[in-house]
Amino acid sequence: MADADSQMKDLKISETKKSKKDGAPKMAAKKPQQQKKKMEGAALIGIDVAKETDLGEWYQQVITKGQMISYYDVAGCYILEPASYAIWEGIKSFFDAKIKTLKVRNAYFPIFISKDNLEREKEHIEGFAAEVAWVTHGGKSKLEKEVAVRPTSETAMYPYFARKIQSHRDLPLKLNQWNNVVRWEFKHPMPFIRSREFLWQEGHTAHLTKEEAGAEVRQILDWYADVYQELLAVPVVKGQKTENEKFPGADYTTTIEGFIPATGRGIQAATSHCLGQHFSKMFNITVEDPTAKEAGKSEHVHVWQNSWGLTTRSIGVMILTHGDNRGLVIPPRVAEIQVIVIPVGVTAKMTAEAKADLYKKVEDITENLKSVGVRVETDYREGYSPGWKFNDWELKGIPLRIEFGPKDAEKGVVTTSRRDIEKKEDARGEVKVSEVQEAIPALLETIQKDMFVKADKEYRERRVQVTDWKDFVPTLNGKNAVLVPHCEGGKCEDEIKDMSARKEDGDSAAEDTKAPAMGAKSLCIPFEQPEGIKQGETKCINPNCKEFAKAWILFGRSY
Amino acid sequence: MADADSQMKDLKISETKKSKKDGAPKMAAKKPQQQKKKMEGAALIGIDVAKETDLGEWYQQVITKGQMISYYDVAGCYILEPASYAIWEGIKSFFDAKIKTLKVRNAYFPIFISKDNLEREKEHIEGFAAEVAWVTHGGKSKLEKEVAVRPTSETAMYPYFARKIQSHRDLPLKLNQWNNVVRWEFKHPMPFIRSREFLWQEGHTAHLTKEEAGAEVRQILDWYADVYQELLAVPVVKGQKTENEKFPGADYTTTIEGFIPATGRGIQAATSHCLGQHFSKMFNITVEDPTAKEAGKSEHVHVWQNSWGLTTRSIGVMILTHGDNRGLVIPPRVAEIQVIVIPVGVTAKMTAEAKADLYKKVEDITENLKSVGVRVETDYREGYSPGWKFNDWELKGIPLRIEFGPKDAEKGVVTTSRRDIEKKEDARGEVKVSEVQEAIPALLETIQKDMFVKADKEYRERRVQVTDWKDFVPTLNGKNAVLVPHCEGGKCEDEIKDMSARKEDGDSAAEDTKAPAMGAKSLCIPFEQPEGIKQGETKCINPNCKEFAKAWILFGRSY
Repeated sequence: MADADSQMKDLKISETKKSKKDGAPKMAAKKPQQQKKKMEGAALIGIDVAKETDLGEWYQQVITKGQMISYYDVAGCYILEPASYAIWEGIKSFFDAKIKTLKVRNAYFPIFISKDNLEREKEHIEGFAAEVAWVTHGGKSKLEKEVAVRPTSETAMYPYFARKIQSHRDLPLKLNQWNNVVRWEFKHPMPFIRSREFLWQEGHTAHLTKEEAGAEVRQILDWYADVYQELLAVPVVKGQKTENEKFPGADYTTTIEGFIPATGRGIQAATSHCLGQHFSKMFNITVEDPTAKEAGKSEHVHVWQNSWGLTTRSIGVMILTHGDNRGLVIPPRVAEIQVIVIPVGVTAKMTAEAKADLYKKVEDITENLKSVGVRVETDYREGYSPGWKFNDWELKGIPLRIEFGPKDAEKGVVTTSRRDIEKKEDARGEVKVSEVQEAIPALLETIQKDMFVKADKEYRERRVQVTDWKDFVPTLNGKNAVLVPHCEGGKCEDEIKDMSARKEDGDSAAEDTKAPAMGAKSLCIPFEQPEGIKQGETKCINPNCKEFAKAWILFGRSY
Repeated sequence: MADADSQMKDLKISETKKSKKDGAPKMAAKKPQQQKKKMEGAALIGIDVAKETDLGEWYQQVITKGQMISYYDVAGCYILEPASYAIWEGIKSFFDAKIKTLKVRNAYFPIFISKDNLEREKEHIEGFAAEVAWVTHGGKSKLEKEVAVRPTSETAMYPYFARKIQSHRDLPLKLNQWNNVVRWEFKHPMPFIRSREFLWQEGHTAHLTKEEAGAEVRQILDWYADVYQELLAVPVVKGQKTENEKFPGADYTTTIEGFIPATGRGIQAATSHCLGQHFSKMFNITVEDPTAKEAGKSEHVHVWQNSWGLTTRSIGVMILTHGDNRGLVIPPRVAEIQVIVIPVGVTAKMTAEAKADLYKKVEDITENLKSVGVRVETDYREGYSPGWKFNDWELKGIPLRIEFGPKDAEKGVVTTSRRDIEKKEDARGEVKVSEVQEAIPALLETIQKDMFVKADKEYRERRVQVTDWKDFVPTLNGKNAVLVPHCEGGKCEDEIKDMSARKEDGDSAAEDTKAPAMGAKSLCIPFEQPEGIKQGETKCINPNCKEFAKAWILFGRSY
């Protein structure tokens, strides 16, 4: 059977080659090999590159060694391993409970969309056409009409809306789906952040009035911010997209924008769109106007629609925000395992009774924590040193470690070690065994809050108000987002993007070669506007623009 | 705006035509039109064909008017409306909790499978090749290598198993997915029962030994039976598939088999497969044999694998089993709404105070029920008579109706009406207002049990033991499944199928022209075997077969 292993090796090598031929990025191909090293020793299980030095390589190691992602032989597609899928399930149950309070109901629409429906709204299809995956064959038979794999479900769902909405009494209609979508992008993929298939929820609702639709758009955005801030401990800025950056086919798009300090790039975290009447006009979703009817007239109005989505990208933003040079750091509220209990100080000299006694106490501590709802596991694995185990669970980002050995038993305490604090001495503490049921849940909440506070402070420091163009690019190059007075003009935005890009010929706006080459785009018009813009007086930051500024707009290089 | 409506009509007509051209079955095309009738009057909301007379038409009306399914313009794909999706969510949370006790973890694998992986296990790909949907284009670009849309995920997951399983300490590995799969079948589609895309869970596990794998296969099958029997109130027969009917690539397949009395056809309800070492050999999933190692030898063994799946078909079986000529009948345990409260006896003569008082009492009853976990809604809609409302909720299959009017208030009772009992007088009862919190949950449980008992009795009566070939076809034609002594030979099964089919030329085995034309196939070898087969003595039922019978096998025409 010895050749099974070498065969396996061959297969893996050929997989690697295959992926490369398919145009998969380097990172999609080389991981399977690395997995083999897993059990070979403590040194190899850790992250061997610093987050500050090479974020790309660091990210790959963190997500694979932390068992969040495994690579796959279709380029741009990734395996969500149980540890990351559990986080998605946590997000799902949190958000699902929120939308149920608005009487949103879950449903399921087919993954395939007919070409005719997909193309019905012009702006929408223009936004998605380049990245739609097409099924052309069933078995060996060519389909009479090819079908699109949904990139989003507006066009799959709205013929149904047209049928179901016959009267204003059928409004509001509020549906949501938890499903998978495909966008066959050719840009460089990145697990969680940009993949060809991803998981998300997509809410689709129809309302009688613009006001009602608008209120829902904002409510949903607030909940999206809660998912990031309350669950993932990731700060975001709420705002509205500019015309340039809004969703194809929307009236307006509201957004929460995150930020990755390590690269200085912004990242769109989730969006909630008011589609206005664009789709209801194309799909003929109308009702008789009840106010006109009261006045004795018969008038039909097109309904007001929203759509809103939150994806598995959120997990990637969380990892990029909190991860450190020892691996993942997962916020307690979404961690599949919140506490890992590790017996320590078990020596060869110890009697069997003493060992059994220690393990019994460890078991009691674990059960006590379970009984108050803490998600806790105990690592009884034989043949691994406590140090090796510490590294292993740190790599996986478990928020809190509890060590318990004979010395702790003597003192009647457990030793705790917080994953979110880098300095060893600051991370450690003691909790009385008799108090774990109150103290540990409280400590988990403290970790959750501290993680947010730290990330929030950093993001605030990286949002720099700039009013003079000469500071724009240097501030960006310092890995910041910039908040600038802007005219809200689309052409002006394009110019800024161009002017802030590092040019290939060395005639570069960006002098720091470590900074990304891309130009800055508008991330959002934050709802929270600082003082200082006088309408008809303050100039747009773009020196070539003749317009007055309308608002502070957050610009940044971005994912 | 008046022409919006006529435009909409045009669109719908063109959708209808389109579907027909695409080869969609008649039923896939005509429903959107019917939806329009929804509000036009009480007469039109009901089912206008009897289950006994035309099951196909009855089923279409029940699922669309009951708002379980809406039709879609890609043939063979259907919209799962909120009422049916909620049932799926109920099944999901029940089964997910069960498998978590086995330490099965959820994960997500890509929907696309590379051709190389898909084709690695020979029997497997032969079983699926004809119905695989292929993505060949991304945007306008032809993909260098087309990718398959998963029909099932064995071949997507097992390269990952090969990487993750490096030592016997990595076993067992137990993963599950809740996802969508696509089988581009060209057979006549039927919502829930046979659709080109469906939702399911697929469990995939790897074990060190055959015994451990086998024990899991049976445990999962028992839980599948619980989903049907305990949640959906649908009886099933547990057994093993014959070699002819097992899953492509499996060692053996265990199954639960349902039955639709209205057509006399069996239906595969869920399957749990032991894959043996077929896939682990093809995908090189091996570990060093720990027992050999203890003996000082180094031997690699291939792991033992299982896969098991339960689909949204279960909802269709539930509907076909319980539905009646007034529409859906949903078992309480999975009903999104278990109880509908309808105020009655509100007359024009009633004072505002009396009305407010009645509504207040209705509200209290509703809240009392909610507080004990009953899923209850109240129908306050104005402009509809109680009778119209009764029909509307009966159509939707809500298990229990509570009526409450001035006469009830006087007596201090609520009037109940059970959906599962057809005879009006038997369906009705009274419960003291002060006792609803105990009595209503108890009544819901009674309904649940009675629904199962009724369906189980019917299925038992339709499983007829037959030992003489001359009774075989007539018994089938009487809309029964037959339990016969059989040799377990594949060729013999094929002969029986052929001999029991109704021939076109009138040389027919089946004389009742209402019976399906198809031949009978083996449904399963039931685990529960009646007495009466003597090995080496009892003959196989097939008169042309020379073999002895090995077991009682359940044969039937089937979906």
